[in-house]
Amino acid sequence: MAGNSFGKFFKLTSFGESHGKAVGGVIEGVMPGLEIDMDFIQGELNRRRPGQSSITTPRDEKDKVEILSGVMDGIATGTPIGFVIWNADQRSKDYGNIKDVFRPSHADYTYQSKYGIRDHRGGGRSSARETIARVVAGAIAKLTLKKYGVDIAAYTSQVGNIKLEKTYNELDLSKIEDNIVRCPDAEMAEKMIEYIDQVRQAKDSVGGVITCVVKNSPVGLGEPVFDKFHAEMGKAMLGINAVKGFEYGMGFKAGEMKGTEHNDEFYMEGEQVRTRTNKSGGVQGGITNGEDIYMNIAFKPIATILKEQNTVNKHGEEVQTTVKGRHDPCVLPRAVPIVEAMAAMVMVDMIYLNKMYS
Amino acid sequence: MAGNSFGKFFKLTSFGESHGKAVGGVIEGVMPGLEIDMDFIQGELNRRRPGQSSITTPRDEKDKVEILSGVMDGIATGTPIGFVIWNADQRSKDYGNIKDVFRPSHADYTYQSKYGIRDHRGGGRSSARETIARVVAGAIAKLTLKKYGVDIAAYTSQVGNIKLEKTYNELDLSKIEDNIVRCPDAEMAEKMIEYIDQVRQAKDSVGGVITCVVKNSPVGLGEPVFDKFHAEMGKAMLGINAVKGFEYGMGFKAGEMKGTEHNDEFYMEGEQVRTRTNKSGGVQGGITNGEDIYMNIAFKPIATILKEQNTVNKHGEEVQTTVKGRHDPCVLPRAVPIVEAMAAMVMVDMIYLNKMYS
Amino acid sequence: MAGNSFGKFFKLTSFGESHGKAVGGVIEGVMPGLEIDMDFIQGELNRRRPGQSSITTPRDEKDKVEILSGVMDGIATGTPIGFVIWNADQRSKDYGNIKDVFRPSHADYTYQSKYGIRDHRGGGRSSARETIARVVAGAIAKLTLKKYGVDIAAYTSQVGNIKLEKTYNELDLSKIEDNIVRCPDAEMAEKMIEYIDQVRQAKDSVGGVITCVVKNSPVGLGEPVFDKFHAEMGKAMLGINAVKGFEYGMGFKAGEMKGTEHNDEFYMEGEQVRTRTNKSGGVQGGITNGEDIYMNIAFKPIATILKEQNTVNKHGEEVQTTVKGRHDPCVLPRAVPIVEAMAAMVMVDMIYLNKMYS
Amino acid sequence: MAGNSFGKFFKLTSFGESHGKAVGGVIEGVMPGLEIDMDFIQGELNRRRPGQSSITTPRDEKDKVEILSGVMDGIATGTPIGFVIWNADQRSKDYGNIKDVFRPSHADYTYQSKYGIRDHRGGGRSSARETIARVVAGAIAKLTLKKYGVDIAAYTSQVGNIKLEKTYNELDLSKIEDNIVRCPDAEMAEKMIEYIDQVRQAKDSVGGVITCVVKNSPVGLGEPVFDKFHAEMGKAMLGINAVKGFEYGMGFKAGEMKGTEHNDEFYMEGEQVRTRTNKSGGVQGGITNGEDIYMNIAFKPIATILKEQNTVNKHGEEVQTTVKGRHDPCVLPRAVPIVEAMAAMVMVDMIYLNKMYS
Repeated sequence: MAGNSFGKFFKLTSFGESHGKAVGGVIEGVMPGLEIDMDFIQGELNRRRPGQSSITTPRDEKDKVEILSGVMDGIATGTPIGFVIWNADQRSKDYGNIKDVFRPSHADYTYQSKYGIRDHRGGGRSSARETIARVVAGAIAKLTLKKYGVDIAAYTSQVGNIKLEKTYNELDLSKIEDNIVRCPDAEMAEKMIEYIDQVRQAKDSVGGVITCVVKNSPVGLGEPVFDKFHAEMGKAMLGINAVKGFEYGMGFKAGEMKGTEHNDEFYMEGEQVRTRTNKSGGVQGGITNGEDIYMNIAFKPIATILKEQNTVNKHGEEVQTTVKGRHDPCVLPRAVPIVEAMAAMVMVDMIYLNKMYS
Repeated sequence: MAGNSFGKFFKLTSFGESHGKAVGGVIEGVMPGLEIDMDFIQGELNRRRPGQSSITTPRDEKDKVEILSGVMDGIATGTPIGFVIWNADQRSKDYGNIKDVFRPSHADYTYQSKYGIRDHRGGGRSSARETIARVVAGAIAKLTLKKYGVDIAAYTSQVGNIKLEKTYNELDLSKIEDNIVRCPDAEMAEKMIEYIDQVRQAKDSVGGVITCVVKNSPVGLGEPVFDKFHAEMGKAMLGINAVKGFEYGMGFKAGEMKGTEHNDEFYMEGEQVRTRTNKSGGVQGGITNGEDIYMNIAFKPIATILKEQNTVNKHGEEVQTTVKGRHDPCVLPRAVPIVEAMAAMVMVDMIYLNKMYS
Repeated sequence: MAGNSFGKFFKLTSFGESHGKAVGGVIEGVMPGLEIDMDFIQGELNRRRPGQSSITTPRDEKDKVEILSGVMDGIATGTPIGFVIWNADQRSKDYGNIKDVFRPSHADYTYQSKYGIRDHRGGGRSSARETIARVVAGAIAKLTLKKYGVDIAAYTSQVGNIKLEKTYNELDLSKIEDNIVRCPDAEMAEKMIEYIDQVRQAKDSVGGVITCVVKNSPVGLGEPVFDKFHAEMGKAMLGINAVKGFEYGMGFKAGEMKGTEHNDEFYMEGEQVRTRTNKSGGVQGGITNGEDIYMNIAFKPIATILKEQNTVNKHGEEVQTTVKGRHDPCVLPRAVPIVEAMAAMVMVDMIYLNKMYS
Repeated sequence: MAGNSFGKFFKLTSFGESHGKAVGGVIEGVMPGLEIDMDFIQGELNRRRPGQSSITTPRDEKDKVEILSGVMDGIATGTPIGFVIWNADQRSKDYGNIKDVFRPSHADYTYQSKYGIRDHRGGGRSSARETIARVVAGAIAKLTLKKYGVDIAAYTSQVGNIKLEKTYNELDLSKIEDNIVRCPDAEMAEKMIEYIDQVRQAKDSVGGVITCVVKNSPVGLGEPVFDKFHAEMGKAMLGINAVKGFEYGMGFKAGEMKGTEHNDEFYMEGEQVRTRTNKSGGVQGGITNGEDIYMNIAFKPIATILKEQNTVNKHGEEVQTTVKGRHDPCVLPRAVPIVEAMAAMVMVDMIYLNKMYS
């Protein structure tokens, strides 16, 4: 209600600031009896971790999750899983000089206005460091989805103007982790990496698009009329830091199309109703139809750039600011596991909700 | 929870099928003392009504809202407003021939799969007729927003490949209602209307984009980290029938941009913190900053086309189907008030939520 | 959220004032495929209806429910069931003289204070007439519970100082409807009726206790730690007009007991774990254990008495008031179906919630 | 939703088992700018802590709260407060012998049935150790209430058959902490302590009643018709371990009364509407009227007794069990701060909700 929880049954409540003691959360609705594979969870955290490669921030946050409850002898008991990730690398003095400054296109001004107070250190609550809690919950959601045979994969499909023309079904999604930009097309990945490197050297940042695909979804997920499958998915993705747009199926391209082009005819594949095309993106009337779900999520270039900018401070004075230190020129490679985490949480929650009708 | 409610405090719970007795709803959280201007509400319903013009469906549903509670002597009492709109023009026999058929890209198959039963008459619950309840609630939300000086306007910015190049601030939004397609650029409107007419004659349908603008928003709306302003707005829009995509601010274009291009520098305008540019679209860190909020909503071409299509029926047989009768070749003109209604509901709900911090 | 909804999945959102056009509601989460037996629903409404007998109010409200959605050919489709009960017998002029007066122990003053406005006619939203919506939803919940073999019965166990000493399992619950006070002990019923008649002649009112029993509950209902089975049940009952107390199992008597007296030893009955005694009232640790659930609900004497009382009006003047007209000297007989309705709704909701773990 | 959260705006989500690593939680909706007085919070924890006196369990859990987020320089920032209390004294081997046994009137059987797995060590999630998280949140709620001038006090008013005849307004509530049983009547406290000591020596346990009083409540709290003030308060109290009943105002005694006895006449005290009597207990129509709120909460004797009992184990075998070690013969003295904590949380949440109408 107050904005720190996601999901209805499979529910994450997160807490923590960038430079506080810890980031953590409580996960409710974990299936009793589920094996909690700590290596898998840690692997997911490593995918999100800064300092993985030359194109991401050199901070090594050494993110280790500590589970405090809800698991006994490696098995989920169905009670809430409390967890923390300690903030080892705080260095809050780096941020002393921007204590009162509203950095352009950051959340400094809006947090100050809304709450009358803010933790200025590294963005505080508005920092993407909070997403570490989502990756933990998402990893447990993925473990749950294995029981249902559902597969989720996300990849970087655009960095700046470098755009993958191939659609997800023309790509080999098993190659996503083969390069540091997490693009399954090796050639395009090369170009993206090169471009990000240029941007980094120019002390600038750049946006992009992540594509996310869900395969083997059960039929019937989604709760019309307001909690349609894609409405929940869209909210999940729009809640990720720096996201500016969401589309599924044909998305904005559907706006250019005619019904004769967009409609997906049904046919029978054995006992199973299938569609010959999948312009709908696996969702019709807000409910999954069993076809692949695919969606695009647009990220803005992050606001932290290492150049001088004009701005104001909280005393209403116009000042100039230059951020020093570490930054990610392009967040997309690290955002890939976050997108997957949100998708996994939505899937599990929707599967649970759909049990009502059983 | 079960998907028929929208909002936390200003909350609509809707009910009703296309060809049942009535569509209606319950609106909670209406400000006690608010004058309920029935003419205004009816005016909004008239904007959504079918049969307004040659380019919309010729059904005249004569939508009159009847308020059953929560209003005394024209004034809201703060108790829930129950209301109904009777379904005068049911003609359900038109639908007898498609009783067991899953129409391509409609919700027939997914509803049948999820619930094991469906009201096949005119799409039942999945019909856009349900949005009439949203327009009623949205009208009351708009009456509430007048107290706060907030303005909302939506318009058709794209029909098929006919796209407005001008941005919202290059247009005169007072001209939206000047033409039947609800596009404030008269010349482009002409082209859109002509195109829709062609599509109609070809028994086809066409998609498009609606742009929605919110001016004079209070600073501070939105509840991070999961219920960010734009995440709630996105969910609201994605919950409208036929919507496939949502973006705000630079949206997908932000994916192509650099930080130096996208960042909005702050300056002081008197006592007020302002931004020189507004690439952010009035939202930073998930919280409104007082600048204009602008967003695009992509609509697919509606699935109802008057041509023969291949499909299957609920007995697993492959059949052909041709829909007869009335249809909207392009829903965008009628969707404009629906988009505004959802935006208005989100705004009021967010304003209420923000009172927590007062 | 705003207080007009009950339940999470099997959810009623009610609307309506005593003297408005109608009372009604929206019921979500009705099992698709459920046969909606209108005669049964009407029968439940008749049990709640005023004017049933000499000891209840002589108003004949002729409460007929009209279902507007969610049901096709008598079968629930899984979409929300909207319904109204028209207020035939409004006679609001009876209430003109108390327009500005705060009647002692009514909700007049508190509604006026909270909302700044109130519908004074017959108590408006605070009138027990609203419970008619609960009886409709409760009837549908009962129809659902038949699928699960769950039985619910409530009865008047106390009127003033006339108290049934026998516990529920010493009574024949099939005799509840045999008399107008709804007490299954014929002799005690006689005394209660006589006493209520005296109270009525004295222009006074009297309180009492209703006992509610749920048999054949599934094991495992309830969501600790905050949404324990009995916590949800308690909230349900305390939300009924005029209720002042709730207890289950030994209730307040448990406060006098020792562990050796109160503990219920387990034993095996075939494959089934059972308890030899049932002091726990069918709930342990907030979760049902399959034994009978029994609870008591205390009702105050209703505030409407036909005697002159001192009070104040909304202008801050001390005045005297005498209510004229019709009143119920004792609401308990009519509250019996309301108690059952709330219990039924809680049971269905809890059964749904428990499906999460399947 | 899944039962581990309490409150809508001032919301606690708790986690943790008796013998896991830690108990903790996340508190949302803490007023930004609130001074978080750690000594006060610790003082509240000390009141709940075991081993305080000869009549409570001799375990010294040394409960120290560690705050992980949401507070900067001692001031709440409005972001969620994550916290943990480490479980120092785990000794889980004490519980090895009851691993598979369902202890009579504990939650062992119901947890096993619901989840198919349970943490048997010390009751796991069903242990009252979880209430430590409530005391932390309650302490922060109390700090918030100081801003509103609201006072909350609870005390032991009954232990077994030893019952305080004096009502709350005949007692000096400043003396609650003067004795180890937390009863403000010194003479009765003496008797209670003596009685508990006898019970302890008899290896038995005993129940009782806690009375809770809220003074200086704002007028207007509560959200009819389902979320009435006392319905929320009742749910809060019934969610505390071992609670079997809740009443407010005259409670069950109201069932014996007539309207002429129970009605509270209004009068003017200066500008303020007051009632001459307060049988209503400060709540009318589910909304506070500004008079004192008083309520009773009944506790059963706790199930842990040091005597041999018959029971069954999870293999369906009938066995005998004797709990060894430490136990509380009477939980009431330690439950007093828990009752206050729940009352404080409800008050803050209701105050926030009521801001909607401002």
